[in-house]
Amino acid sequence: MYDSENREGEADFVIASQFVKPESIKRMRQDGGGLIFIMIPKQVADKLQLPFLANLYSEISNKYPVLKEIAPNDIPYDTKSSFSLYINHRKTFTGITDYDRSLTMRKFAELIKRIENLDSNLVIKEFGKEFRSPGHVPICVASKNLLDERKGHTELVVSLLQMADLIPAGSGCEIMGNNGRALSKKDTIKYANKNNYIFLEGNDIIKAWKQWSK
Amino acid sequence: MYDSENREGEADFVIASQFVKPESIKRMRQDGGGLIFIMIPKQVADKLQLPFLANLYSEISNKYPVLKEIAPNDIPYDTKSSFSLYINHRKTFTGITDYDRSLTMRKFAELIKRIENLDSNLVIKEFGKEFRSPGHVPICVASKNLLDERKGHTELVVSLLQMADLIPAGSGCEIMGNNGRALSKKDTIKYANKNNYIFLEGNDIIKAWKQWSK
Repeated sequence: MYDSENREGEADFVIASQFVKPESIKRMRQDGGGLIFIMIPKQVADKLQLPFLANLYSEISNKYPVLKEIAPNDIPYDTKSSFSLYINHRKTFTGITDYDRSLTMRKFAELIKRIENLDSNLVIKEFGKEFRSPGHVPICVASKNLLDERKGHTELVVSLLQMADLIPAGSGCEIMGNNGRALSKKDTIKYANKNNYIFLEGNDIIKAWKQWSK
Repeated sequence: MYDSENREGEADFVIASQFVKPESIKRMRQDGGGLIFIMIPKQVADKLQLPFLANLYSEISNKYPVLKEIAPNDIPYDTKSSFSLYINHRKTFTGITDYDRSLTMRKFAELIKRIENLDSNLVIKEFGKEFRSPGHVPICVASKNLLDERKGHTELVVSLLQMADLIPAGSGCEIMGNNGRALSKKDTIKYANKNNYIFLEGNDIIKAWKQWSK
């Protein structure tokens, strides 16, 4: 997926978390190289009672004044940070191997499916039985109204999943170019063709979304 | 560096943060593939007033009950998590590119050097002028008495830096094998030889440390 809306341009691997295998993590880290993370809708985050880290830091900054000083009040690409907790499945060891990260992602997707009709107080117990934090897989939370509200990669991915009727947890990773910055659009298309991946342009997802969500 | 003490065995890239360049990040993500992070002594963390995430979560868990549920009370390789904040230098864009992560690491090492003789209240202001959190570079904090207290990779790296009289901020990354788990010791030695890197065994660092710190 390529997001031209992003000021610097951004290429990303995207895969539904329910399908992530150790080989997926290997591919993302070897050919992508960015942060390997999970993206979920705001509604799921609310059900899991997941805080935004930026809010959490701000709320406890009386105890830790350093958190006031390093507040993310100047993010160049957005008005606020969409990062929530970093998690590991409790059956992982370090949490970072291909095996461990793929387990965390797959099990997280399964959890989301399982809690669909549960009350939120039960949900966090189910969540806690299986996962711990701090961990190695960051969760980013999409804006509530998805592409109608914000057009970042988290919203693009969550919208895609919704249109495809998959479990609303996406896994992704930025793809780096050889110049130490994001891979260019041209090279992203070349890479996708060579490896038999589908290339999607952010703007096309937005168009499809407008049609679909009418 | 290879740590045989670790139950699963663990291979790591190690480089002093002051020397990290975009190419270092590229090498770590392409040939390593684990979490790319910073390691510092407890004394530096205290000066920066950096909290352990696990403590911070626990302290604010009345407001966010989910944090109680997902507490990291079952880490298989340790008694507690050594993770502190994830930071970005304020001059980064997304924070994740090779360029951005190397800038964050180098500037963090420079900060540590600069604050050596400053009062902690000034230190957090200096820190906040340059860095924001949440970010993409996690900081791990070594045990106070280093290898006399704990023999994890964070302590090994911080001890190495101290013996080498470098700025006490190390950068590192776990090296994955083709099997989706940590690279074996044999393959780590092979890789180091092929690429002209120094191979260090954790136990040898511990021996040197005992000698040096007498």
